[in-house]
Amino acid sequence: MKISTLGPKGTFSHEAALRHNDKSNILFEKTIWDVFESVRSGKSDAGIVPLENSVSGTVGATVDCLLEFDLKIQKEIIVPVKHNLASKVPLNKIKTVYATQQAYEQCEQYLRKNIPAAEVIYTSSNSVSAEKLAASKGNVAAIVPTLSADIYKLKVIAPSIQDSKFNVTRFILIGKGFSKRTGRDRTSISIYPQVDRPGLLHSLLGEFAKRKINLSKIESRPSKGKLGDYVFFIDLIGYKDDKEIKEAFSTIEKSFFLRILGSYPREY
Amino acid sequence: MKISTLGPKGTFSHEAALRHNDKSNILFEKTIWDVFESVRSGKSDAGIVPLENSVSGTVGATVDCLLEFDLKIQKEIIVPVKHNLASKVPLNKIKTVYATQQAYEQCEQYLRKNIPAAEVIYTSSNSVSAEKLAASKGNVAAIVPTLSADIYKLKVIAPSIQDSKFNVTRFILIGKGFSKRTGRDRTSISIYPQVDRPGLLHSLLGEFAKRKINLSKIESRPSKGKLGDYVFFIDLIGYKDDKEIKEAFSTIEKSFFLRILGSYPREY
Repeated sequence: MKISTLGPKGTFSHEAALRHNDKSNILFEKTIWDVFESVRSGKSDAGIVPLENSVSGTVGATVDCLLEFDLKIQKEIIVPVKHNLASKVPLNKIKTVYATQQAYEQCEQYLRKNIPAAEVIYTSSNSVSAEKLAASKGNVAAIVPTLSADIYKLKVIAPSIQDSKFNVTRFILIGKGFSKRTGRDRTSISIYPQVDRPGLLHSLLGEFAKRKINLSKIESRPSKGKLGDYVFFIDLIGYKDDKEIKEAFSTIEKSFFLRILGSYPREY
Repeated sequence: MKISTLGPKGTFSHEAALRHNDKSNILFEKTIWDVFESVRSGKSDAGIVPLENSVSGTVGATVDCLLEFDLKIQKEIIVPVKHNLASKVPLNKIKTVYATQQAYEQCEQYLRKNIPAAEVIYTSSNSVSAEKLAASKGNVAAIVPTLSADIYKLKVIAPSIQDSKFNVTRFILIGKGFSKRTGRDRTSISIYPQVDRPGLLHSLLGEFAKRKINLSKIESRPSKGKLGDYVFFIDLIGYKDDKEIKEAFSTIEKSFFLRILGSYPREY
């Protein structure tokens, strides 16, 4: 089984891939688009990408690829996010910190309080931050996942520095075709209104409400056509072939473009 | 009038500040948090920050600060986003490209097609990309806004390389207190459900639908408590003191925590 995910090794995506199946052959790709392309072309059997983080919100690039590629969400994998400050020097000597923009934003209060004068240099991946520190001399630090710290043999001088102690990322496994019903499932859909009028979303949600279908997420994203022209992304509890869900979908399809992005076992 | 925004000079935020009022004294801050803090403390009279981009979606850091600080959205400013490739060498000689992660993602297809072998180095701001190129020797390029290219006297070798030709960012002016009613307004609110049950959002939206109040945006964001525990962000057409809107709010407040983030003239 070949699984592609975001590299280099040591990223939270790598950790998600190991949680999924630590016997898989893992292929590291550079961008989310590359992971989708790798699965589409058959270079890998499935891919693992981040969908949302409890602090930063939705990963736009993943949502865009779900619309662009004809691949399905087959599983969700929840990974707790722990950011660690690693360095070869003590806290009060640090002049420069390597971090991804997300890691920086999620540790901003800690850094302001403890090393306010340090210059932050953004990197393209948490593992690149680790690599940069490993290769550096001088008063340098990096914000790194535990897996990266282990791989690059870095010294963690302050563990778990994220400002919000509840910080998890929801990863998804993407592949060709739908997962089977397990009885404890979630279904992700995108909905594009064919017209715009007051109460449109209300009538849409009414189809779910009157069938007691519970929504676990709703989000509108600009459809790239114009501001104020939105695609809705909705997660609901249940499997796509459940009677009530099928009924709701077929009613909704009369006035909306509906696409099922996946129907898969849920973790929460 | 002192306006704080994201620096250094030449960013899209700088352009938004100039569009707002080109006679203002502009203070450049490093992060979105810094801009809010600058207004809260009275260092500046108002701040300008990005709220959402038509391609990348919502700016999480801005939404978090709207909840954290007691400041109001007083105006929206729409800025078209044009990414330009600047370099001192021709396209086929480029080995390295400086870009923010957002700029890279918004030009990814162009770069893959035209300079697939170039290494991308992320920066913390579009203006930093411009600065890096200005200071560089060798086969380097940068993705920069037109304003940055002008300020740093860079040669644009490929203008407007963003993949989506419709690409605009919605900036907001934040300050103390509400704007006055203009008759063509938008109101932004956050809503946190006191309980979770099927149909909750449907009943919430019903309060708007039955009063013919049109929603221009809805988004759920993790409330940082747990996955599946969401705060809703809703934009609606109208002013907060309009009769129907006041009625809807007072009904909704019986079962939700509702906060008005701003009520301001709308641009679209």
